[in-house]
Amino acid sequence: MDFDAMFSKQVDALKEDGNYRIFAELERKCGAFPRAKSHDDDAPDEVTVWCSNDYLGMGQHPVVRQAMKDAIDDCGTGAGGTRNISGTARHHVALEGELADLHGKQDALLFTSGYVSNWAALSTLGSRLPDAVILSDEFNHASMIEGIRHSRAKKVIWRHNDPEDLDRKLAALPANAPKIVAFESVYSMDGDICPMQEIIEVAEKHGAMTYLDEVHAVGLYGPRGGGVSEELGLADRITLIEGTLGKAFGCMGGYVTGSAAMCDFIRSFASGFIFTTALPPAVAAAAQASIAHLKTSQTEREMQRDRVARLRAKLDAHGIPHLHNPSHIIPVMIKDPVKCRMLADILMRDWGVYVQPINYPTVPKGTERLRFTPGPLHSEADIDHLVEALTVLWKQCAIAHAVA
Amino acid sequence: MDFDAMFSKQVDALKEDGNYRIFAELERKCGAFPRAKSHDDDAPDEVTVWCSNDYLGMGQHPVVRQAMKDAIDDCGTGAGGTRNISGTARHHVALEGELADLHGKQDALLFTSGYVSNWAALSTLGSRLPDAVILSDEFNHASMIEGIRHSRAKKVIWRHNDPEDLDRKLAALPANAPKIVAFESVYSMDGDICPMQEIIEVAEKHGAMTYLDEVHAVGLYGPRGGGVSEELGLADRITLIEGTLGKAFGCMGGYVTGSAAMCDFIRSFASGFIFTTALPPAVAAAAQASIAHLKTSQTEREMQRDRVARLRAKLDAHGIPHLHNPSHIIPVMIKDPVKCRMLADILMRDWGVYVQPINYPTVPKGTERLRFTPGPLHSEADIDHLVEALTVLWKQCAIAHAVA
Repeated sequence: MDFDAMFSKQVDALKEDGNYRIFAELERKCGAFPRAKSHDDDAPDEVTVWCSNDYLGMGQHPVVRQAMKDAIDDCGTGAGGTRNISGTARHHVALEGELADLHGKQDALLFTSGYVSNWAALSTLGSRLPDAVILSDEFNHASMIEGIRHSRAKKVIWRHNDPEDLDRKLAALPANAPKIVAFESVYSMDGDICPMQEIIEVAEKHGAMTYLDEVHAVGLYGPRGGGVSEELGLADRITLIEGTLGKAFGCMGGYVTGSAAMCDFIRSFASGFIFTTALPPAVAAAAQASIAHLKTSQTEREMQRDRVARLRAKLDAHGIPHLHNPSHIIPVMIKDPVKCRMLADILMRDWGVYVQPINYPTVPKGTERLRFTPGPLHSEADIDHLVEALTVLWKQCAIAHAVA
Repeated sequence: MDFDAMFSKQVDALKEDGNYRIFAELERKCGAFPRAKSHDDDAPDEVTVWCSNDYLGMGQHPVVRQAMKDAIDDCGTGAGGTRNISGTARHHVALEGELADLHGKQDALLFTSGYVSNWAALSTLGSRLPDAVILSDEFNHASMIEGIRHSRAKKVIWRHNDPEDLDRKLAALPANAPKIVAFESVYSMDGDICPMQEIIEVAEKHGAMTYLDEVHAVGLYGPRGGGVSEELGLADRITLIEGTLGKAFGCMGGYVTGSAAMCDFIRSFASGFIFTTALPPAVAAAAQASIAHLKTSQTEREMQRDRVARLRAKLDAHGIPHLHNPSHIIPVMIKDPVKCRMLADILMRDWGVYVQPINYPTVPKGTERLRFTPGPLHSEADIDHLVEALTVLWKQCAIAHAVA
């Protein structure tokens, strides 16, 4: 049986649709972020990264780097085992304490990634709570969808950010079934933010637990970086807050926080937690340093907001259409996978601007976009350069339209 | 609804069975491995780790640590994005090249962990190859089981390490269905090794692809650390070799290797690859340094084999029963979860010997064990101390049995 032919056939179909992914090979330059060295032949040697999820540049912060290097010197590069079998270091325990404190919860549980934390926590909750029903916002992230699917619990999808639809769907369920309302604070591709208080009130009314994904919010929102739930003073009404160490905190890993009983339950039963090598202690140490820094420093958050506001204002001034939302994410809609890739290629090649085209399956077909994430380290000149590039491209597109 | 009560009830049941897990909090001492500082009140300050999966101590090797620190200085602590969206660094690309070379394959694909590589690769193969059937060895690891389950492909379980049973089960399937034979080289809990050539021959006879998990073998077997498939000269007959960077290579992460078409297929469709932040470039750099070192150095492998042989011989001389197998893993069967935990506690408290009790669900109930993994850095005195401790405990148990 020719397996390679079967594999190639499906990949070729992606290519025909314009959805085949080509990874940009970069080398971020420590101390010069958002500048990076490009290893792609068609790009300039140095490019400016405009689509990183290291939203605050913490992955290059001296305190974070030093914490990671110190832990390597103290105890090496890897954990050497699962959390249960020789893989728990004091760094993991300390980080779990830091995370519980960040969200004002009793306890926290570390995972190897945010993806795994969602997948493992939701699949464990859904499969082990008898007759559980998971009510999932229709735009939830792939990791949540896969976790719910894996649990084989009953799933009910409610309309995106629509508490009234959630209310109706909760009301239709048996009163005695355990219900889990799963949603995100900041949706990463549109940058919209959920109506958290309304969702909580509906969930409370029906005795449902709330499962909140804050991966695109932790570090960025709230006076200590505890996310949108901290900013709105609602964290204590959320049953489980899930977050990542790989975006604003600049490292790697994921976590859930909540009651001690819940964390112990997930710790004790989640296959994706139990049967995997623990995070390197050095990564845990770096993440803890990053979280601790962002608990007290407002500088990075304030500078980021300033850059976001400036880019939005300049895009408006030049007539470049972008999705309006209350977050730090600026999507410029292209709505065609081939054009989206072409524009990104031109930006990279001619302007040294790196923004990845966002195509299916990350976003629905027909909503392809360029997604910009301005950070504290983008300069006024960087913003002007980006807006100039987009303006020139927009004019060329308009001409192309006119003569087509 | 009292969710905490529901969580506690299930955890309490674990406690009653003796299967509740308590993690030992350790701090491995760089340069002094297998010594570690214990943070547990009942244990001596310094203990000797006897159950690490950092089988060769590479997690503390100066070359590996330096590579990780250099990469942190070059480009920071995290990748800052998924592989597609700003997260691919030259370190990932170079590591994938190193891994393809290690196994003599066209290409390789990195994942955030070995667990995720198995889960994502098997769920993608099983779900996207129409009418696929996965034939799974009955002792396969949890990550493979969950991946197969998630694929919703038809699953056929064959008797552990039994090519004849596999042959019968393959023969019973439709000739035109794509078949995937999934198995491991070294089974981590019994330490037995599969009859690889026989399995390959059966798979080839039926036109099935072979999926081989080498996580407990890479770095350890074969003249360049390419695993049992390299040692036996069979790597080119295996369709997909999966491995980990978190055990003998001393870091974190997982991978698959195989044809370029297959890697591109998994890269393009696996949710667990696409929607997750890439490994930190520094972890990739450390892993590459470790793999490159073990491709040429035989010292670590030879020393490990020497320690394994010595411990086995001394256990035999003192009448301590252990499972005989051809690998580096020495299981001492206890067959009771409470006794297993008790023995491990006494070893830790009175002898400074850290070996985690292996209970359900890692092994079937009734097969609880202590699992020793001697490494190149265990000294003759460490081995003598361990055997003395076990001998004393065994005599006490015999007395306890006699008076009971």
